[in-house]
Amino acid sequence: MQARTPEDSKTTLTDLVLPSETNPLNNLFGGELLARMDRAASIAARRHSRRIVVTASVNHVAFNKAVPLGSVVTVEAKVSRAFKSSMEIYMDVWVEDRESGERSKANEAIYTFVAVDETGTPVAIPPLEPETELEKKRYEAALRRKQLSLVLAGKMKPSEATELKALFVNS
Amino acid sequence: MQARTPEDSKTTLTDLVLPSETNPLNNLFGGELLARMDRAASIAARRHSRRIVVTASVNHVAFNKAVPLGSVVTVEAKVSRAFKSSMEIYMDVWVEDRESGERSKANEAIYTFVAVDETGTPVAIPPLEPETELEKKRYEAALRRKQLSLVLAGKMKPSEATELKALFVNS
Amino acid sequence: MQARTPEDSKTTLTDLVLPSETNPLNNLFGGELLARMDRAASIAARRHSRRIVVTASVNHVAFNKAVPLGSVVTVEAKVSRAFKSSMEIYMDVWVEDRESGERSKANEAIYTFVAVDETGTPVAIPPLEPETELEKKRYEAALRRKQLSLVLAGKMKPSEATELKALFVNS
Amino acid sequence: MQARTPEDSKTTLTDLVLPSETNPLNNLFGGELLARMDRAASIAARRHSRRIVVTASVNHVAFNKAVPLGSVVTVEAKVSRAFKSSMEIYMDVWVEDRESGERSKANEAIYTFVAVDETGTPVAIPPLEPETELEKKRYEAALRRKQLSLVLAGKMKPSEATELKALFVNS
Amino acid sequence: MQARTPEDSKTTLTDLVLPSETNPLNNLFGGELLARMDRAASIAARRHSRRIVVTASVNHVAFNKAVPLGSVVTVEAKVSRAFKSSMEIYMDVWVEDRESGERSKANEAIYTFVAVDETGTPVAIPPLEPETELEKKRYEAALRRKQLSLVLAGKMKPSEATELKALFVNS
Amino acid sequence: MQARTPEDSKTTLTDLVLPSETNPLNNLFGGELLARMDRAASIAARRHSRRIVVTASVNHVAFNKAVPLGSVVTVEAKVSRAFKSSMEIYMDVWVEDRESGERSKANEAIYTFVAVDETGTPVAIPPLEPETELEKKRYEAALRRKQLSLVLAGKMKPSEATELKALFVNS
Repeated sequence: MQARTPEDSKTTLTDLVLPSETNPLNNLFGGELLARMDRAASIAARRHSRRIVVTASVNHVAFNKAVPLGSVVTVEAKVSRAFKSSMEIYMDVWVEDRESGERSKANEAIYTFVAVDETGTPVAIPPLEPETELEKKRYEAALRRKQLSLVLAGKMKPSEATELKALFVNS
Repeated sequence: MQARTPEDSKTTLTDLVLPSETNPLNNLFGGELLARMDRAASIAARRHSRRIVVTASVNHVAFNKAVPLGSVVTVEAKVSRAFKSSMEIYMDVWVEDRESGERSKANEAIYTFVAVDETGTPVAIPPLEPETELEKKRYEAALRRKQLSLVLAGKMKPSEATELKALFVNS
Repeated sequence: MQARTPEDSKTTLTDLVLPSETNPLNNLFGGELLARMDRAASIAARRHSRRIVVTASVNHVAFNKAVPLGSVVTVEAKVSRAFKSSMEIYMDVWVEDRESGERSKANEAIYTFVAVDETGTPVAIPPLEPETELEKKRYEAALRRKQLSLVLAGKMKPSEATELKALFVNS
Repeated sequence: MQARTPEDSKTTLTDLVLPSETNPLNNLFGGELLARMDRAASIAARRHSRRIVVTASVNHVAFNKAVPLGSVVTVEAKVSRAFKSSMEIYMDVWVEDRESGERSKANEAIYTFVAVDETGTPVAIPPLEPETELEKKRYEAALRRKQLSLVLAGKMKPSEATELKALFVNS
Repeated sequence: MQARTPEDSKTTLTDLVLPSETNPLNNLFGGELLARMDRAASIAARRHSRRIVVTASVNHVAFNKAVPLGSVVTVEAKVSRAFKSSMEIYMDVWVEDRESGERSKANEAIYTFVAVDETGTPVAIPPLEPETELEKKRYEAALRRKQLSLVLAGKMKPSEATELKALFVNS
Repeated sequence: MQARTPEDSKTTLTDLVLPSETNPLNNLFGGELLARMDRAASIAARRHSRRIVVTASVNHVAFNKAVPLGSVVTVEAKVSRAFKSSMEIYMDVWVEDRESGERSKANEAIYTFVAVDETGTPVAIPPLEPETELEKKRYEAALRRKQLSLVLAGKMKPSEATELKALFVNS
């Protein structure tokens, strides 16, 4: 299969924060943002694999900044690394100030999706070729995150997680 | 402040999987389950802290098992460790077979919430005293997860994450 | 079929009152609570019968207490009596005060469900054996409610509703 | 206050049954219909009282006929009796066959609403003057239903429910 | 096929403006009203044609008047002209003042629907016979609107739009 | 005020077609697409004006192509002309084939928004400077559409709609 670039799967979901999506502080509910990111990530995963895709895991999401009612929120999703049939999707979430028009980073999130056929069986997907500096950096880190995920799930021994181990041993 | 137990914050959200919540394979959407878990976790965090609570991060969620349309899904959330103003919430998600009545584990998830006052400023919360074996195990692991979170966010050097380092160095 | 207890079908649906579910007084909409109770009751009915179940009637629901935006609401549903293929479900609804953590009763509701096969035809269900005092009391009253329902629907003559008649004649 | 007629409060809510509102048998969910009826009834109560209104109770709803996905459903609500500050609303629900255009009765429902001011305190409402035969019949029966409601809630002794008692004693 | 009148397809959708349907000024969102009108228009089109119907175009909608949260909104839809397989639906939208009970016009809208069979192929529909003055006026104007639509879509030369041309040439 | 370009207001809303948004033919509901386009257009209008914006009218929307369940739909909105306080927004809607990855045009739509202050009063907005050929063509046509809108609303005599009249008289 021919390699694709992160840009090929880039997905932009710009939408409003509606009253039905806010918590008691009048900010966007964490759960609603998680759901929006899942939809954006699934489209990026589908654009890379051209297959049915299902959420495998949410690796990490930090909510650094409250997103107030009426905001314009942009979720930008790109595949950051492709494995055999799974893909890591890296998302940047931006909030826009109405008056100045400036965008500030609200949070980042990493989801993993698996490409499957109609019976739900995993299928092979094209490799990913990162292009920009940031894409390359995220591509490298994706391997450590995958090892971490396997260690936490008890499917890999810490001693075998060579990439990850180096991080702690040599520091 | 008086300590509370995980049982004090236990929250059960049993609900159906409705047609509007399914993906093209007729299983529950990852994003919808993430949103339900966010609501259940926020109630557990609130029961422990008796404060307004906001989602700080989603630490890890693995979707091990598809949840078909029409299933009965139970999200069970308990506070697994309390820090100064943040709490880790551990959730077990069960799916129930209609005919046999048997419940099987669909996935586990860990969210972090912060207790805040009306202005959004973090406030102190009661300590947590785990009681059962499982609660104690999760309480211990929570510290490693917090260190991991700080390391990944660049707020702690790997060398300072003593609990975490031990895991890799000694193995 | 082997008898089941009310505890066997006990269903707990704890959830928040979100902004999209409130009326102009900022309290939970009656209609939204009716829908939540329908879902909780249907799960209890399904746990007792292990069959597809459909709503047959809503016997009585009193909204005694307003439930404000942001509340934590718990619907607790149990089968209170099983007839040939229909079941009465009794629900208690609780609201929780965030600061004190105290729960107070918001209302009670009684729904009737029928167990059916894939073609919608009613099927036989297991008998119910009440255990606690409250369960026994509700079990007894269920028969009077069924007679009342039949009388109001014109399907039973008042003179034949012996349980119900006694209530008025002897008082 | 000047009396109003049932026709003055007549409210028609005709809408489709959408995929997100159906149960596993592909019929309209009981809970969704209960919510729609609550909205229609609240508009009828508001048209009679010209006040803020809140749901007081659902007196009886029988689901006699399944309503399939894609159906056109009409809820027709009219005030059937006005008391001091509460109103009984009687609803007829119709389903329409697409090909023949014929309407058939799907169910009837009775809700009670209370008119309140901005603080939630009950306020006086205009009397109701039924006009047609059906309106008069429902007006009479409303009193028996109110007594029944009070008896079931333990707020009236069966011996005082004269209208209701007659039904059983003389039959 | 036997002709039908606009009254035969008249559809009334009266509903509340809920908090989840409002914009930052606390008025009904344009998009939500567009969706409600689409449902009402589709029912009118279906009542005229007794067929599956799909939205072909939205010809014009002017939002002349803001519709505040908590309002009672009535969408009244009638077929205004039937062509071979397409129908123009004319809608009047009313808002009701709670205290005075008076209705004022919020906006008008014109949608076009096409009747299709199960494969999505257009099918013939009955002719429309307007009865009232207003219905006749809208019936006449519908032809000009159809020509305008075809001209704007580049499917008819302006010189062939005789009805429309007269409007500009003779004025 | 400094002029802005259409590119400055470009808004991309890429999202899935979920089961709750489909009609009986399993295609995206017209009403749901109208609501999505209203949100995308309002963001474009806000990016151009940096003000609160409200929908003024939907000028024309043609649904040329059905959008099946599970599709990826992209709404791309840009301001096409700015008047004193109103803006015309032109939208292109694309549907993406999962397997080939190809995008095809599903429909175009034109909405008008007005910029207002907190009291709802219209306010002045920056002029628009179109750059590409397509943007210039749409900019020109916007004036004819505005005249047409005024003529249809009875606010301009056909004889005064010079741009529009030319279209019919000279052809």
